[in-house]
Amino acid sequence: MKGKYIVIEGGEGAGKDTQIENLRREFGEENFVFTREPGGTRIGKVLRNMLLHESEGPVSLPAEFFLFLGDRAQHVEELIKPMLNVGKNVVSNRSYISFLAYQVYGRQQRDWEDLVRLAIDKIFEDTPIDLAIILDVPYEVGHARMVKVGKELDVIERAAGGLHERVREAFLDIAKTMPAAKVIDASRPAEDVWKDVKEAVQSVL
Amino acid sequence: MKGKYIVIEGGEGAGKDTQIENLRREFGEENFVFTREPGGTRIGKVLRNMLLHESEGPVSLPAEFFLFLGDRAQHVEELIKPMLNVGKNVVSNRSYISFLAYQVYGRQQRDWEDLVRLAIDKIFEDTPIDLAIILDVPYEVGHARMVKVGKELDVIERAAGGLHERVREAFLDIAKTMPAAKVIDASRPAEDVWKDVKEAVQSVL
Repeated sequence: MKGKYIVIEGGEGAGKDTQIENLRREFGEENFVFTREPGGTRIGKVLRNMLLHESEGPVSLPAEFFLFLGDRAQHVEELIKPMLNVGKNVVSNRSYISFLAYQVYGRQQRDWEDLVRLAIDKIFEDTPIDLAIILDVPYEVGHARMVKVGKELDVIERAAGGLHERVREAFLDIAKTMPAAKVIDASRPAEDVWKDVKEAVQSVL
Repeated sequence: MKGKYIVIEGGEGAGKDTQIENLRREFGEENFVFTREPGGTRIGKVLRNMLLHESEGPVSLPAEFFLFLGDRAQHVEELIKPMLNVGKNVVSNRSYISFLAYQVYGRQQRDWEDLVRLAIDKIFEDTPIDLAIILDVPYEVGHARMVKVGKELDVIERAAGGLHERVREAFLDIAKTMPAAKVIDASRPAEDVWKDVKEAVQSVL
């Protein structure tokens, strides 16, 4: 029996880490693998440092597109696909939905959209997402949470507010076209959000 | 005045390094920049090690496509375009032509061709190649040269013979569709090849 491919999406401070921790506590690690994008593989970790922490200096916009795609492609081939095939459920902190929402819509690079969608189709053709949980939260609420816990912000998180508003809209727009997407109001207390997250995950298992 | 973008292409042992060394001696480094793909930038060097030396373990085929494209994109934005814009001529050891010849044709991944061509068009839309010198040599001749000088072979160079035959055909096919391409018979002595290379470069300066 094949495992389920579940992704947790949402803007900064939407509570992805908290809900993933809840999932780990609830379902354990015997039948679940927890991972993230970018950075779910050895290659991905190097790319993540380049992209989010500029480990090798500034990344040009066109290179950013391809390196994010490289991370996704390696993650699918090296981890997601093999794990699903042995029946493990894979929970990923972010996925190609974030890539579309941030790089194409958030940064207003719509002229990259055809290429990016073609690439995503190619990478994920045998590995469709079974459940995409979109934790939806207004930017001010999410940002205030991150400031409160003193989280050190990466290149994307430090970007100006307009980006994050566009990203939120993009998540909601993508969700409308994606039957596997479930939007959850994440401006509520974490316990309430968790009830919905748990229910959504149980519904696909 | 804009500089010229010149690339030196060819299979293993075609004599690219030798001819580039000749160009360096002939034209100096005041008006010329010498670079290579993959690996022409800091980011590119890390990618080159991943791709050719498996520094982070095996790279999956889909990831390979995107990482090679990321290298090209960063190279154009960070080095090639700025150098051409200040009037320097750029000579690159390999280019996207190699990428097409090896990854798409050589490895028989024709179902990637549309995506790759779309990506190349996007990356190079403002930076067309002014001269592509294709050093053409039968695989056995090129391989024998590399063995003779005891060159340590990377992942691609170690690949089985069939790949290299297909790559050679691909270089010749691509050249036919590319007005900026000049095929030079590189099975001749290096001095004879150099005469043609020099003449070709002078014709675009």
